[in-house]
Amino acid sequence: MAEFLHVITADQMVQMLELFPRLSAERVSLDASLDRILSADVVAGEDLPEGARSTVDGYAVRAEDTFGASDSIPAFLEVVAAVAMGALPDFEIRAGQAAQIPTGGFLPRGADAVVMVEYTNPASAGFIEVTKPVTDRTNVLERGEDSKSGEILVPRGKRLRPQELGFLAALGITVVDAYQRPRVAVISSGDEIVPADRKPGRGQIRDANSHAIAALVRACGADPTVMDIVPDNASMLEEAVRRGLSEADAVVLSGGSSVGARDLMVDAVSGLPRTEILAHGVAMRPGKPTLLANQAGKPIVGLPGHPVSALIVAQVFLAPLLLFLQGCPMEKGPLGQRIKAELATSIPSTIGLEEYVRVHLEESPQGGFLAHPVFGKSGMISTMVKANGIVMIPLTAEGLPKGEIVQVIQY
Amino acid sequence: MAEFLHVITADQMVQMLELFPRLSAERVSLDASLDRILSADVVAGEDLPEGARSTVDGYAVRAEDTFGASDSIPAFLEVVAAVAMGALPDFEIRAGQAAQIPTGGFLPRGADAVVMVEYTNPASAGFIEVTKPVTDRTNVLERGEDSKSGEILVPRGKRLRPQELGFLAALGITVVDAYQRPRVAVISSGDEIVPADRKPGRGQIRDANSHAIAALVRACGADPTVMDIVPDNASMLEEAVRRGLSEADAVVLSGGSSVGARDLMVDAVSGLPRTEILAHGVAMRPGKPTLLANQAGKPIVGLPGHPVSALIVAQVFLAPLLLFLQGCPMEKGPLGQRIKAELATSIPSTIGLEEYVRVHLEESPQGGFLAHPVFGKSGMISTMVKANGIVMIPLTAEGLPKGEIVQVIQY
Repeated sequence: MAEFLHVITADQMVQMLELFPRLSAERVSLDASLDRILSADVVAGEDLPEGARSTVDGYAVRAEDTFGASDSIPAFLEVVAAVAMGALPDFEIRAGQAAQIPTGGFLPRGADAVVMVEYTNPASAGFIEVTKPVTDRTNVLERGEDSKSGEILVPRGKRLRPQELGFLAALGITVVDAYQRPRVAVISSGDEIVPADRKPGRGQIRDANSHAIAALVRACGADPTVMDIVPDNASMLEEAVRRGLSEADAVVLSGGSSVGARDLMVDAVSGLPRTEILAHGVAMRPGKPTLLANQAGKPIVGLPGHPVSALIVAQVFLAPLLLFLQGCPMEKGPLGQRIKAELATSIPSTIGLEEYVRVHLEESPQGGFLAHPVFGKSGMISTMVKANGIVMIPLTAEGLPKGEIVQVIQY
Repeated sequence: MAEFLHVITADQMVQMLELFPRLSAERVSLDASLDRILSADVVAGEDLPEGARSTVDGYAVRAEDTFGASDSIPAFLEVVAAVAMGALPDFEIRAGQAAQIPTGGFLPRGADAVVMVEYTNPASAGFIEVTKPVTDRTNVLERGEDSKSGEILVPRGKRLRPQELGFLAALGITVVDAYQRPRVAVISSGDEIVPADRKPGRGQIRDANSHAIAALVRACGADPTVMDIVPDNASMLEEAVRRGLSEADAVVLSGGSSVGARDLMVDAVSGLPRTEILAHGVAMRPGKPTLLANQAGKPIVGLPGHPVSALIVAQVFLAPLLLFLQGCPMEKGPLGQRIKAELATSIPSTIGLEEYVRVHLEESPQGGFLAHPVFGKSGMISTMVKANGIVMIPLTAEGLPKGEIVQVIQY
């Protein structure tokens, strides 16, 4: 039986992933840019707001006219006009005058503050009483106070959320530069594998991996293409990977749970031009037979054939790689929030293997979370569905004791 | 000035949202079902696996033939065949015999366990030594052990992750019943509002809301349609809402930061047939002028015109509503993980208003997180972009002191 050629640690694997070049940038319309990563700073071309605006409903005034005003000795001001939305006021406020102004209205010339309507009373016709003084710029958003022309509005590398889209729209920016989304060819292989919509013959099983992996690729903001299932034949595998590379930025193939099939995958990838095998075997469980190769700058990731192992390896390496290629910082491990939880039972582990253990998180009666390992034979796909978290046990640990506070990756 | 008609608390608002009917179900292809919510249990139509399979590379044996085997006194077994992937073995293992078997291979008749290759040595031609005993079912996944025919594989109400897709594919389920994704009409209104790609005239501002809200709708797995901007005119607003309702499952309109414009929105919605205004005013900040109406079972949500307020109200109410409509449990508050953090400075608040304060989370030197409030005048959209979290201050609190441990919703 063949030995593993380049067994590396999971951390070394991540360092290798980080050496792949990021994808190129493209122009993306703002409305299609949610969750995309900026490839360049977005810089303001103008001031926001472009003139002083009121932040409340009330009266635009000269602040000094309100100094000393109170309930018992209000200031009397003449209301000379009303500011309309959508038009710049074409009048001026002079000493002793005020203008009605709605929230968001632009201040008329001469006014430097706004008194909230709550602190005014109607007085004789055309006049108001002001019962509370305001100082210069009270209830006013000044020109450029939100952002100034030339300022970086959103920096390169930032993932765009709804709030960034709103901010950029407010400044008239409707197209942004973002990294391309990786196109990923997804290949399942194995003599025993048939498409999921076909009834397997005796001894055959359905292709679970291409569906799970394609979904994970999608969840990473990348674009999967599922290719036909390939039998355990090195030259057919090589041809499939070659076809995948011609159309995609990365190829993920799964298959080869048995030693013989794993060797086929290495043979197939080794046959490609300008290809370096970076890793064949990672010191982790599940997922030891993971393969990583670089074909002229494009990553080829070989996953175990087993659906559980394949998806965990894809979570641990493929997901961070796909995010990295589209501009995110490299972060090892599955997608998903990290939360702290207490281990409900001890988990044994093997020194020298980084173990990824599926857990079920449940809220603990004391607050916080309890993590219950989801045990089951390694072939059981149902364990993935029962789990809602993963705990990583380091290479150097013999296991984790019950009661230990661990970091759980929700998945 | 008009009074608020039905000011309610945020909790009451959420209770009202929960009374809207969920959307109907539809058949969805498995590969399009990522993040969709099942509207019916998915039940297994067959056993998985459909026969006993090996979970390791090794030799299929009768366990009793290995009893007592050790390094010093190994068991000798005759290797009579090799199990191939993709075919059911057509031979039988008798006493004293073994068959080579790859991971995933189906067990031949007569065999009830598998010895890992690591615990075997080649012996004379056609024989192996077994150096460790196995018991019945060791390294074997039995028929139906992963899931049994008739079992619920994934229950109704579950959001489908990559792992569910893989599991269902393994069982030949390539179409599922899921709730429809809400179609949402998004309307911005205001005399001062111009499209984001147009240069505003003096006194005008660009439409930020439709971009931010449409993106949030998308982030909720729903499908936004952005409609034309409507001026401050009750009958035009009414017509726009009516058009939105004819095509969508829900309408969200924003506008009306000033008191007059808010009244217009109520007038417009009141004019629709079979429409009940459920709330006009929510005791929260920002977002007090929020409107909720029910038009023949379809929600109409009126947001403040202010981009910051509009997006926060949308996060707090619209996002949970859209998730609820497509089958999720109702959960108050913005999308996003909840994490604990320590307040870096005190935050004042007003009793009687539930306040949503934007914070910037930063990792604290002691581990854990520090939440820094992002202060800024209420009109500043840049505060939304600087924040990466929201802290809710309850109705009953006068504020939160520095050092308090608070729940932050990452956003």
